[in-house]
Amino acid sequence: MRGVVMYGPGDVRVEEREDPRIVEPTDAIIRLTATCICGSDLWPYRGAEPVDHQVMGHEYVGVVEEVGADVRTIRVGDFVVGSFWASDNTCEICRAGYQAYCPHRVLMGTLGTQSERARVPLADGTLVATPGMPEPDLIPSLMAASDVLGTGWFAAVAAQAGPGRTVAVVGDGAVGLLGVLAARQLGAERVIAFSRHPDRQALARDFGATDIVEERGDAGVARIQELTGGLGAHSVIEAVGTQEAMMQAIRSARPGGHVGFVGVSHDVAVPGDELFMAGVHLHGGPAPVRQYLPELIRLIWDRTIDPGKVFDLTLPLDRAADGYRAMDRRTATKVLLTL
Amino acid sequence: MRGVVMYGPGDVRVEEREDPRIVEPTDAIIRLTATCICGSDLWPYRGAEPVDHQVMGHEYVGVVEEVGADVRTIRVGDFVVGSFWASDNTCEICRAGYQAYCPHRVLMGTLGTQSERARVPLADGTLVATPGMPEPDLIPSLMAASDVLGTGWFAAVAAQAGPGRTVAVVGDGAVGLLGVLAARQLGAERVIAFSRHPDRQALARDFGATDIVEERGDAGVARIQELTGGLGAHSVIEAVGTQEAMMQAIRSARPGGHVGFVGVSHDVAVPGDELFMAGVHLHGGPAPVRQYLPELIRLIWDRTIDPGKVFDLTLPLDRAADGYRAMDRRTATKVLLTL
Repeated sequence: MRGVVMYGPGDVRVEEREDPRIVEPTDAIIRLTATCICGSDLWPYRGAEPVDHQVMGHEYVGVVEEVGADVRTIRVGDFVVGSFWASDNTCEICRAGYQAYCPHRVLMGTLGTQSERARVPLADGTLVATPGMPEPDLIPSLMAASDVLGTGWFAAVAAQAGPGRTVAVVGDGAVGLLGVLAARQLGAERVIAFSRHPDRQALARDFGATDIVEERGDAGVARIQELTGGLGAHSVIEAVGTQEAMMQAIRSARPGGHVGFVGVSHDVAVPGDELFMAGVHLHGGPAPVRQYLPELIRLIWDRTIDPGKVFDLTLPLDRAADGYRAMDRRTATKVLLTL
Repeated sequence: MRGVVMYGPGDVRVEEREDPRIVEPTDAIIRLTATCICGSDLWPYRGAEPVDHQVMGHEYVGVVEEVGADVRTIRVGDFVVGSFWASDNTCEICRAGYQAYCPHRVLMGTLGTQSERARVPLADGTLVATPGMPEPDLIPSLMAASDVLGTGWFAAVAAQAGPGRTVAVVGDGAVGLLGVLAARQLGAERVIAFSRHPDRQALARDFGATDIVEERGDAGVARIQELTGGLGAHSVIEAVGTQEAMMQAIRSARPGGHVGFVGVSHDVAVPGDELFMAGVHLHGGPAPVRQYLPELIRLIWDRTIDPGKVFDLTLPLDRAADGYRAMDRRTATKVLLTL
């Protein structure tokens, strides 16, 4: 089968890879309908994380082709969406809603889903079947549910976005934009998006942002203070992963407020004295997307939400290298790869 | 009146100070029945924070002697307990339960309550009257409510201690020990106290600790893992304020667990990548003690709890210097000063 391999920073190739096969009796093999490129794939692409002939991709939707002997709920022919962490969904950690920390978890990125087929471990725990075969125009939104929507949703939940609360969103990438969508769906009347890119501002407004702040850092924090009567936002989503973004998020929240951070941390250190005096709640990490998939699929199936709009470039898998380049150069926010 | 002044590190004196008087119409003047020395008073005493002729003390119980023209609910003759932050208790931040961050807050430590009398700003918002004049044996417990009990209580709430949850407590000072008491009162069946001092272990057990762990750092974390089926504690209280204690707390919590930190942070930096991968909730800072005072006073008045046991040395105010010395040398956990 064809699949993406990152040979090294900046060097992405689509080449012939071995077809996946059932290894554990709880596995499923899926034929992908679509996959995509994640903002986190850019860290190794840019040399900020080591990479050497790595298979790529951890987001996926597709049709089940084969299941292992112990798979009970997922069937051949199902159209499925799964999380970027495979999880058993039965252990104490999963039942508490933290499937990304399942003791039996497997990171899908190590298997590589930017490919024609993929092996999904713990299929019953990991995959959620849609009510039927989706209309083609729903594919991008279901694809978004696999990671960026689920991650933005978790960030909004971690930030306790909800009725009566003002939410600020740091980061205007796909996750931040879908954090805006999630915050509105969760009931927040006021959602302030930090963004200085006109196209992303437009999408943020489309997803429900009520205010846009172009300033960053301390100037951005000052604007949030102005917009919230000097108190700060109740809820802040951090969807970047840098020191500046994390501190901007913490400083934008009011005492007692909640910061949900989902940007993969790179060289971040949170000063204890400032965190102590801020009085905010801080929660984040890899999103337990599996927890939200049934609800997200329902909202997409009912056409209540249209998160697929974050994909502003669609390419066939064979042109994955062009997709990486576009995201690296910021000419695309999020790239969908079709098969 | 007599009051404590810290001339410099290690140099505590009780000397004649000017009597406090009503400055704002919302002030009250109280005659102290008792005050005490806080673990945080040891930071400047040890030279870890700058200090120069500073009035000391922020914990207090006593009888109201005079009130300003705008004081409505607090009356002359009331026996009162107050928080170490004066707060209006009417603003949006106070009503959300974060009185320690009231925009009008005044830090009582800047007024100095290790003294015969004290001015309490925002008296209606800050002070809570007891149902009557307390029996003398209740004084230490009411004194504890003013800070160490309220702080331990906030830490337990921030850590979401409650039924069905295992709570670990880092720090066996007065706040940590009262965190044990709070966790049990909030319904936790299992409370694991980190302590290597036999007398503090005994008090921890008296307050409801079910397990004692003597190891610290990674060895301590490993013991928590053993005691929790490899998952970690649901709730962890951090009541020290050092890097080692903070990391021990974060590493002792399971994914999705809650860390409540109340140790005043000194040279702490939380690594973002580790926090990201830990998946814990982190919340803490100066405790909004005022929020809990009515409930804590009721539990003490009913003799349901006896937090006054943390005071293992009682001295008259004039011997405050001996009290500082005892706490610095760890021959006392917490010193009560009587008037």
